[in-house]
Amino acid sequence: MNYRMVGYVLGMLLMFEGIFMAAPILTAAIYGESELSVFIGVALFCIGIGILTSKLCRPKTKTMFAREGYLIVAFSWILLSICGALPFVISGAIPSFIDALFESVSGFTTTGATILGDVESLPKSILMWRSFTHWFGGMGVLVFIMAFIPLSGGQNMYIMKAESPGPSVGKLVPRIKTTALILYSMYLALTVLEFILLAAGDMNIFEAINTAVATAGTGGFGVKNNSIGGFSSYTQIVVTVFMFLFSVNFTSFYLLLRGKFKEALNSEIKVFFGLSILASVIIFLNTRSLYSGNAEALKHSVFTVGTIMSTTGFSTVDFNAWPEVSRSVILLLMLIGACAGSTCGGFKISRIIILFQSMIKELQILIHPRQVKKIKVDGRQVEHEIVRSVHVFLICYVLILIISTFLLSFDGHDLITNFTAASTTLNNVGPGLEMVGPISNFSVFSTSSKIVLIFDMLVGRLEIFPILLLFTPSTWKK
Amino acid sequence: MNYRMVGYVLGMLLMFEGIFMAAPILTAAIYGESELSVFIGVALFCIGIGILTSKLCRPKTKTMFAREGYLIVAFSWILLSICGALPFVISGAIPSFIDALFESVSGFTTTGATILGDVESLPKSILMWRSFTHWFGGMGVLVFIMAFIPLSGGQNMYIMKAESPGPSVGKLVPRIKTTALILYSMYLALTVLEFILLAAGDMNIFEAINTAVATAGTGGFGVKNNSIGGFSSYTQIVVTVFMFLFSVNFTSFYLLLRGKFKEALNSEIKVFFGLSILASVIIFLNTRSLYSGNAEALKHSVFTVGTIMSTTGFSTVDFNAWPEVSRSVILLLMLIGACAGSTCGGFKISRIIILFQSMIKELQILIHPRQVKKIKVDGRQVEHEIVRSVHVFLICYVLILIISTFLLSFDGHDLITNFTAASTTLNNVGPGLEMVGPISNFSVFSTSSKIVLIFDMLVGRLEIFPILLLFTPSTWKK
Repeated sequence: MNYRMVGYVLGMLLMFEGIFMAAPILTAAIYGESELSVFIGVALFCIGIGILTSKLCRPKTKTMFAREGYLIVAFSWILLSICGALPFVISGAIPSFIDALFESVSGFTTTGATILGDVESLPKSILMWRSFTHWFGGMGVLVFIMAFIPLSGGQNMYIMKAESPGPSVGKLVPRIKTTALILYSMYLALTVLEFILLAAGDMNIFEAINTAVATAGTGGFGVKNNSIGGFSSYTQIVVTVFMFLFSVNFTSFYLLLRGKFKEALNSEIKVFFGLSILASVIIFLNTRSLYSGNAEALKHSVFTVGTIMSTTGFSTVDFNAWPEVSRSVILLLMLIGACAGSTCGGFKISRIIILFQSMIKELQILIHPRQVKKIKVDGRQVEHEIVRSVHVFLICYVLILIISTFLLSFDGHDLITNFTAASTTLNNVGPGLEMVGPISNFSVFSTSSKIVLIFDMLVGRLEIFPILLLFTPSTWKK
Repeated sequence: MNYRMVGYVLGMLLMFEGIFMAAPILTAAIYGESELSVFIGVALFCIGIGILTSKLCRPKTKTMFAREGYLIVAFSWILLSICGALPFVISGAIPSFIDALFESVSGFTTTGATILGDVESLPKSILMWRSFTHWFGGMGVLVFIMAFIPLSGGQNMYIMKAESPGPSVGKLVPRIKTTALILYSMYLALTVLEFILLAAGDMNIFEAINTAVATAGTGGFGVKNNSIGGFSSYTQIVVTVFMFLFSVNFTSFYLLLRGKFKEALNSEIKVFFGLSILASVIIFLNTRSLYSGNAEALKHSVFTVGTIMSTTGFSTVDFNAWPEVSRSVILLLMLIGACAGSTCGGFKISRIIILFQSMIKELQILIHPRQVKKIKVDGRQVEHEIVRSVHVFLICYVLILIISTFLLSFDGHDLITNFTAASTTLNNVGPGLEMVGPISNFSVFSTSSKIVLIFDMLVGRLEIFPILLLFTPSTWKK
């Protein structure tokens, strides 16, 4: 095990986290908030420790194997979250460390589940840090760092594989660094575009920045107690559009920009939009009578489908109060998520396509036992290893969901609360149903339950395996 | 496609169904019930049509492929259920055909979910037929017939594969016919033993027969409105013991009888009893305060774990009213089921063992990408085809559960009712939670929902693939 390498990357990560605290520092300075000193202190601490660690651990050899890749990713996200929680605790905004960690993990994993009932009473710098954790987490912290760390050979591919959402990682251009830069430019450009459109509406600059970065990371922390519910229809529609945009594989945008329309419109995107439309129509028909007009009902239906499928977690209405059919659809969408290679959490459409193909293949084999069938997506054969890995992903996913729901039941809340709390955190959505519905929050859970949910958020964001490997004995064997 | 063969086997099946109606005919005769003529009529009808069809369709060639095997199994169970529903409708005991079909499917699939609120008011011959459908369905109707049909070559292996519960079918002795005879002798012997023990307690002969055959098939239809709740502790304990016995792979009994203790105690049985003990302890600790003494609490805990894991569905208490932890455990057990090769429904422990092994294998491959790992159970390597098939089974299982829950939501009942109704029927358990809890019944659902549940029961009993193949276009291509 190349421990120096692990230490080196973790040090770099801390440094970057410190630098990213410039956002809340600036906010605190502008609004003259007393949290300024807290953020400056934590930032300097992170940068200092970061520089020290990365200097001390400068690796003698750059050789890195899969194991180091997964461990770096797992430890990074844990460290990132712990340090990200410090400003909440030190400033007194969230005095309990577990609560602060919950909020920090929820931020970085772009979940958006909160333990706070009244966000409007918080200092603006704290809100800005909350929202920025989404943006930082959504972009793939380590892939970002990888673009700066001079690692030769395809070594950092392991990290990219472990951190990137979806069953397989594609490079746009031969060099990872260039690929990362292209992706981040688009990420930044879309965020800025959303900010401009929001600021042009009824949001002030502060609200527009927060909402734009939280949408970009498909996070969902709001700056208002009723999320996006109090803003104009224009604002709600802008957010809806961007939630859908950030649900799409960034590679598709790149292909679109290069004029490759056919390649950009892959089957994942078609299924994603197909499902979105279907779900919106069902919810619209089911909730139409609840609203003053069809336009109003349609707006809320599409917004809710967008917020759940993109795993953002904003809300314009209390969908927990909707009729059973809509609630079932929401729960279903919660378990699906959007496209691989976007900032979304969840199971991912591409995995579902592979699972469907596996099903069809198996049925055909039953009828024609001697035929050799291969699974194809978009005309390309899917490697056996990826298919198997997607199958095992489902196994782990179901297992974690079941065990989490069981562990949460010790708090005595109802099954729907427990199951949707587990689902919404594992899929990095944000709100669930019943006691964790959009107008409620996660403060109802005990400390031990919050630890379960923190685990679920991390395991969901890192797509299960890196975190599970921490608990696998063979990871630690020489 | 060898249609003659399909017709031939279906004819034989009808004949056997008619013969099995001897049980309710005898009951009606003894108690002087007016249903006597109904049962005689339906029995003659089944036997007549059966003989005619099998004569007309006597196959010219005995060649049979996988496709015929699956189709025969799927059609047989549908035909069996339709004819089994006739006595309910014609006698007027259950006037609605869909309700009667629900009851009949629930019987043959050994689910035990009922749409009847007051079973005590029913004629004894009707109750006997209900219970006997469990016994008939539990034994594997077609495997039974196969033991009598002179099919040369290993052709009927396809039928045995399609109808037998569990991921793989083992033959005890080289000839299927002998294997089947050994298994049925044990089935009969255990049923008779339970009958004797029950009749020795506070059950009368009629109750003891009904309960014994319903336990043997792990069905769960009771002859009392409160199931087994009104009987003595002795009776409840006898039923508990036999529910566990019928959860075990019959092959293990055979091995035990032949003195092969080590082979009989395979990992599936160990995991099954390990889980049963764990679940019983959790429920006992969680519900202890609800009962007058520890013995009482322990009795109900073990009974409930037994009834759910064995997918029988009897009840001694209203476990729907238990605290959340116990309810979550019950829901979990509902999704698991017991051992392959028993009369139980559900996902089956052996599949879960294979899924666990897949998970461990995948994690090891992530760390050591070049290692070749094989999945082993009880020291024997599990074939790649079986592993893949178990994976796809999980995919189909989750998909059916999700779609069913969604379809049920149109009735407007709560999510727990819908989800547990789908789970309990797909796993052939019987009761669920909330509105389908042990003191309620399935009459709350609309006709369309009942059709969904009928589908779930059939698909669950036949372990998904044979029924899904009916909807696969390539099944019907030349």
